[in-house]
Amino acid sequence: MSADTDTHSVGIVSPRTARFEEPLMLACGRELRGFELVYETYGELNPEKTNAVLICHALSGHHHAAGYHSAQERKPGWWDECIGPGKPIDTRRFFVVSLNNLGGCHGSTGPTSVNPETGKPWGPGFPPLRARDWVHSQARLADLLGIDCWAAVVGGSLGGMQAMRWALEYPQRLKHCVVIAAALKLSAQNLAFNELARQAIFSDPVFAEGNYIYSGEVPEKGLALARMVGHITYLSDEAMANKFGRELRAGSLDLGSEDDIEFQVQSYLRYQGSQFSSQFDANTYILMTRALDFFDLAREYDNDPVKAFSHATCGFMVISFSTDWRFSPARSREIVDALIAAGRPVTYTEIEANEGHDAFLMPIPRYLAAFSAYMQRVGVDD
Amino acid sequence: MSADTDTHSVGIVSPRTARFEEPLMLACGRELRGFELVYETYGELNPEKTNAVLICHALSGHHHAAGYHSAQERKPGWWDECIGPGKPIDTRRFFVVSLNNLGGCHGSTGPTSVNPETGKPWGPGFPPLRARDWVHSQARLADLLGIDCWAAVVGGSLGGMQAMRWALEYPQRLKHCVVIAAALKLSAQNLAFNELARQAIFSDPVFAEGNYIYSGEVPEKGLALARMVGHITYLSDEAMANKFGRELRAGSLDLGSEDDIEFQVQSYLRYQGSQFSSQFDANTYILMTRALDFFDLAREYDNDPVKAFSHATCGFMVISFSTDWRFSPARSREIVDALIAAGRPVTYTEIEANEGHDAFLMPIPRYLAAFSAYMQRVGVDD
Repeated sequence: MSADTDTHSVGIVSPRTARFEEPLMLACGRELRGFELVYETYGELNPEKTNAVLICHALSGHHHAAGYHSAQERKPGWWDECIGPGKPIDTRRFFVVSLNNLGGCHGSTGPTSVNPETGKPWGPGFPPLRARDWVHSQARLADLLGIDCWAAVVGGSLGGMQAMRWALEYPQRLKHCVVIAAALKLSAQNLAFNELARQAIFSDPVFAEGNYIYSGEVPEKGLALARMVGHITYLSDEAMANKFGRELRAGSLDLGSEDDIEFQVQSYLRYQGSQFSSQFDANTYILMTRALDFFDLAREYDNDPVKAFSHATCGFMVISFSTDWRFSPARSREIVDALIAAGRPVTYTEIEANEGHDAFLMPIPRYLAAFSAYMQRVGVDD
Repeated sequence: MSADTDTHSVGIVSPRTARFEEPLMLACGRELRGFELVYETYGELNPEKTNAVLICHALSGHHHAAGYHSAQERKPGWWDECIGPGKPIDTRRFFVVSLNNLGGCHGSTGPTSVNPETGKPWGPGFPPLRARDWVHSQARLADLLGIDCWAAVVGGSLGGMQAMRWALEYPQRLKHCVVIAAALKLSAQNLAFNELARQAIFSDPVFAEGNYIYSGEVPEKGLALARMVGHITYLSDEAMANKFGRELRAGSLDLGSEDDIEFQVQSYLRYQGSQFSSQFDANTYILMTRALDFFDLAREYDNDPVKAFSHATCGFMVISFSTDWRFSPARSREIVDALIAAGRPVTYTEIEANEGHDAFLMPIPRYLAAFSAYMQRVGVDD
């Protein structure tokens, strides 16, 4: 954290833990007897409790979305570009709530937590989750904080899917829904990449069908491969070309010197992979990618997204990025078309950006401007 | 093989082995003391030896490009759609030569062959190869067959890169060069996918830095993952959507029944992966993907593809496929633009096809028609 960032930063923040004793019935039919959610808040809740914004995180995200946990922390929360004073989600106006989802590995109840029935970590036995389970557990957090209705529920990627599910599960509990770089459901190619990532983890002998958690070992190689899959699909061809091109990190492509040639992009992927594998729980990764696979907004509405969105009552903003090939602009236009057909008010912006899917995390001026403009229209009065 | 296919098939074919005693100097500076190439031929070499067409194979290809090895063989060679009587490479006119490249694992000298200096398989000690090494070894095969000049050198993907390299290394030894679904060099994204595939193999403890070959074990899990990476990038999003969509193979997405859900695309990828891992050598896979990474047609020509192609004297046909995102039409247009600027005659066709990179192996009518039309213009007279 630097003095320079202070004026546009939420500053030092501390996570809190909310404990919920009432059982939560999950989509799979199993019941979770009590659970904990770790969350952070930024800004002040107004007396009317009408200025609250919920942040839903993506696959490998967590509650620490903005600010710093200490003055020594080098990097701020994962969405600090968008949350803070004067930023799109302006903490001078909004009270922002950001949590680690159920099933996560950053403090909320998940596979690394102790199962009270066995006294041992849940591990691979943690119940499978769907986006609606996250939404239901987030509603419990809203109850706890006294928030009857969110000014907005906001998310990118898998977070955008949760935001859409909110609009259908609790239409009266949000005024606006901001869906960034998301889709109504995964395509076969999306499913294929998730399967590849999971198979990489399954193939690691250390994983042992998820029982590594009892041996104290970590399936680092499998997790690193899974993260590499993610990284390649988060970045666009253009972004990779700009960032790495065919630059070498070691060796030479000259004839007669073939040994130890290493491209920068290879080295980057290996580094990112190994970093991730020391920070993330493999069972959580499996659980999160499965929830992503199973997400299908309109499935229970006769596979008709128009019918699905006809249950919503909030306003929508949908944002996509030109080089995002994980959830391309065409996927966002499907959402927009369904919203229009369902008669919902919707603002759509496709941002020209080279950064691929990762663009939703980046300070791209047109993106921040469009996002800010919409959020300024989000009322905070009752 | 069925009676039905007889008239358009080259029929039963048998591979032959050519032994070359003269050492081959490799691009890496190491010398290979003698080597063998396995090859097949289809059609008849004319007395003037002017009707020979060389087929260069892609990453995991081999010499068996057309016909059947026996009447019992169920599937023909890998490019049977394009090679045979009345097909684009018409064996009534052409004498077709198809080989397994040096470093391969289908009979040509490679990591699974015995290193005469040690009496043991080369394994990971096999010299690294570049596309030019394949071209030089293919020229030896041409010498052996008495072919001074190919009527055409033809290849898809990595095979197209070899065809282009032929045009620069031996400009007098080919009349036409057919480059299908290829590129002047790999992009950072291409490099990233190859790195992911290799890391998957490296991560398999059975691989043991390539020494599995001495233990008799096979790094099946790593190879299967590598093949999954390949398959996802060979197929387009559209092709996967058409072929699999979100169809389930097992389980149900209904609420309350979360166990054992399996999408068709997941099952397909796992099957393809496991099939491949029992058929392909991991050290060869590493070697082939590295050769692909290192390929850069214009590197030694001041990184100027126009300068590179100014050394060519043959005619060119370049073909790309609309949904190929591994080597997209834009990459083929780079080749075409450079050829035009270099004053080379070039015919370019971009085929609308949903099949992605794999389209070059498919019987797509417009593709076969354009390919046939060009090959009919390839003269077989001196």
